Amino acid sequence: MVKIGILGVGTVGASVANILEMNADILEARSGKKIVVKHGVVKNMSQDRGVNIPLSDNPMNVLDDPEIDIVVELIGGVEEPYALIKKALENGKAVVTANKALLAYHRYELQEIAGDIPLMYEASTAGGIPIIGALRNGLTANHIVSIQGIMNGTTNYMLTKMINEGANYDEVLKEAQDLGYAEADPTFDVGGFDTSHKLLILASIAYGLDAKPEDILIEGIQNITQTDVSFAKEFGYEIKLLGIAKKAEEGVELRVHPTMICKSSMIAKVDGVMNAVSVVGDVVGETMYYGPGAGGNATASAVIADIVDIVRGNQGPMLGYKKSLESGLELLPADEIVTHYYLRMEVNDKSGVLARITNELEKFDISIESMLQKPHSNDNRVKLLFTTHACQEAKIQEAMIVLKKLECVHGEIAMIRIEK
Amino acid sequence: MVKIGILGVGTVGASVANILEMNADILEARSGKKIVVKHGVVKNMSQDRGVNIPLSDNPMNVLDDPEIDIVVELIGGVEEPYALIKKALENGKAVVTANKALLAYHRYELQEIAGDIPLMYEASTAGGIPIIGALRNGLTANHIVSIQGIMNGTTNYMLTKMINEGANYDEVLKEAQDLGYAEADPTFDVGGFDTSHKLLILASIAYGLDAKPEDILIEGIQNITQTDVSFAKEFGYEIKLLGIAKKAEEGVELRVHPTMICKSSMIAKVDGVMNAVSVVGDVVGETMYYGPGAGGNATASAVIADIVDIVRGNQGPMLGYKKSLESGLELLPADEIVTHYYLRMEVNDKSGVLARITNELEKFDISIESMLQKPHSNDNRVKLLFTTHACQEAKIQEAMIVLKKLECVHGEIAMIRIEK
Repeated sequence: MVKIGILGVGTVGASVANILEMNADILEARSGKKIVVKHGVVKNMSQDRGVNIPLSDNPMNVLDDPEIDIVVELIGGVEEPYALIKKALENGKAVVTANKALLAYHRYELQEIAGDIPLMYEASTAGGIPIIGALRNGLTANHIVSIQGIMNGTTNYMLTKMINEGANYDEVLKEAQDLGYAEADPTFDVGGFDTSHKLLILASIAYGLDAKPEDILIEGIQNITQTDVSFAKEFGYEIKLLGIAKKAEEGVELRVHPTMICKSSMIAKVDGVMNAVSVVGDVVGETMYYGPGAGGNATASAVIADIVDIVRGNQGPMLGYKKSLESGLELLPADEIVTHYYLRMEVNDKSGVLARITNELEKFDISIESMLQKPHSNDNRVKLLFTTHACQEAKIQEAMIVLKKLECVHGEIAMIRIEK
Repeated sequence: MVKIGILGVGTVGASVANILEMNADILEARSGKKIVVKHGVVKNMSQDRGVNIPLSDNPMNVLDDPEIDIVVELIGGVEEPYALIKKALENGKAVVTANKALLAYHRYELQEIAGDIPLMYEASTAGGIPIIGALRNGLTANHIVSIQGIMNGTTNYMLTKMINEGANYDEVLKEAQDLGYAEADPTFDVGGFDTSHKLLILASIAYGLDAKPEDILIEGIQNITQTDVSFAKEFGYEIKLLGIAKKAEEGVELRVHPTMICKSSMIAKVDGVMNAVSVVGDVVGETMYYGPGAGGNATASAVIADIVDIVRGNQGPMLGYKKSLESGLELLPADEIVTHYYLRMEVNDKSGVLARITNELEKFDISIESMLQKPHSNDNRVKLLFTTHACQEAKIQEAMIVLKKLECVHGEIAMIRIEK
């Protein structure tokens, strides 16, 4: 018999406890052992958790119990769970965590502390999709060329609504909040931060890359308008919030931002709250993994898969590498990213304006690929929408500053990156 | 250092040998050891294989070499590789195979013979997609509700062409043959047999089910016409050759046949030679796995992932179960399958004919869901196309026999199953 302790019995923790009971037959057949939750730890003892397991509010009841083999951490946060997991590992207990923020900051320290003790985290990234297993075990033959992930259901739900139903950002945000998909303060989701944590975890397995959220380019979906959506439609793109990891000549690009991608690509077809991660390997080509990225049961499915793997005697290496690569890949500074860009700006409806703008762009070696002019509510102005050929991020940023200062350009210039 | 012997150095074997060399850096970092091919075995020594490994035509040079740790079987066929793998396992060597036919017939005997020695087979099903890992490790928390797989690139290429370009079966078959996607005798692919082998492997992991190809319903795509394709389009379906495993109340349905599926489902969006497997679990809901199902490099990617897993010390249980389930699931006889059906027939263009047909169907408790009548090249006849509500396979088969005998019905009646 294997005994489990659960730190944090909220939605996911309750699902883990209940599914271990409900699917005990198949779990015993697959793992070879009975798996039983011995103890759960909660902060607020007065709340009903809907589980049949002994509860207390003291984590030491799990961490110091020599009968408990595996600790499941579902508290959330960063420093508190870090200390608890450290203690569990020091006490020789295997650990399963669903905590992306913790891993975004402390995955390399945790790998060091864990050593040969299993520390698994399938549930941290893209919920019920076994993407960690795919990347860590299924694709080991490959140098990873790129990863593109829709790893936040809230924003994908919102973008899908904006694209398919022509709804505005504010409307769909309110709807997502009413449905419980978005928080009262939605910044963590819509600002791309949630996606960045998951991207950093995948980048460790793909490239052995140690980076933190503040090291990488993160932009959210807050400034996407129906003008952008209809431009995208007209030119054969979908708009998705992607976490992107990509091998460049000089290093690895890591970035999170709304992205125009070709409608016919598989990941462009992923709608609503669903998640998907597309991985291109140098040997296998493209594979994609699709499924629910959130929810108590989907997340619990991943947590329990890790438990079964530990019981079977399988495990890591935690971050995919038994030895370091001699020539480690470095994170490319955001300035050096090279991609295609879409720009939207409001300009005077006068002859010579277009020439003025293209001239300025030319000074930065930026050439225009396609262009669309749309009427504006103000009769003397038009909306100018265009895409560029590949250019460097630093150049487009500088060009935007210069363009914004032109007297023929009004207000902010909106930019969305395009992946071909 | 880990030493590999390869039995069969054709397209896949050469890819395995070359990728182990080309990606040696990342493979050593991920597995912790140098992986080297010591010997390859071929039937025809005079043919150039494009590899830098010692070759001979005697399998015993691999099987009896105490320095070789892992044997990779890529010969194909059933009984010959079975004997060789048996010998390798008896000599204590771990085995990796890509051989679906072998596993379709001998997987349970091989599991027995292997015992604690790793025998892995990721490459046997859906090529480069790590679906065996997903099902055996990633989804262990779940009772599997259903599996739907596009696991044959040739037929998916052909159906995609028929649907998107309005091409006829014979035209696209010839084109697939010219491109090397289809064999001169295409029966193994277009007849659904290739898909059935893969389905049986997945069904073992999902349900612990021992069945052979001849035990299950297998139908190919040979009778699909443009009439069916345009009907499907009009009613919001795609037509795909699916391998389906599905838990029914009384057991498990296993079947391979062309299937009408809703256009908006993720698997309906998988086009061309690509493969995908959609798995519904009772806990996680739907996840889907997409990628290349064939080709030397894609298949080698899966073979090498298995090698790395073995070197790391991870493995099975081979078919997913450490213990048998007490209440094993049984294969449901094909007659007892329950699904929706599409029928196409040629009938007299006369009043009363429709009533006659629906009356006959009613006798079998079959009710019509939607109907379409199309003109026929013969003025006195029309094509009658309709879909039914859910009914039992036995009833539809009996009804088709009765309908065919009606004097108002001419020629064969075509039937395609529909999955809702």
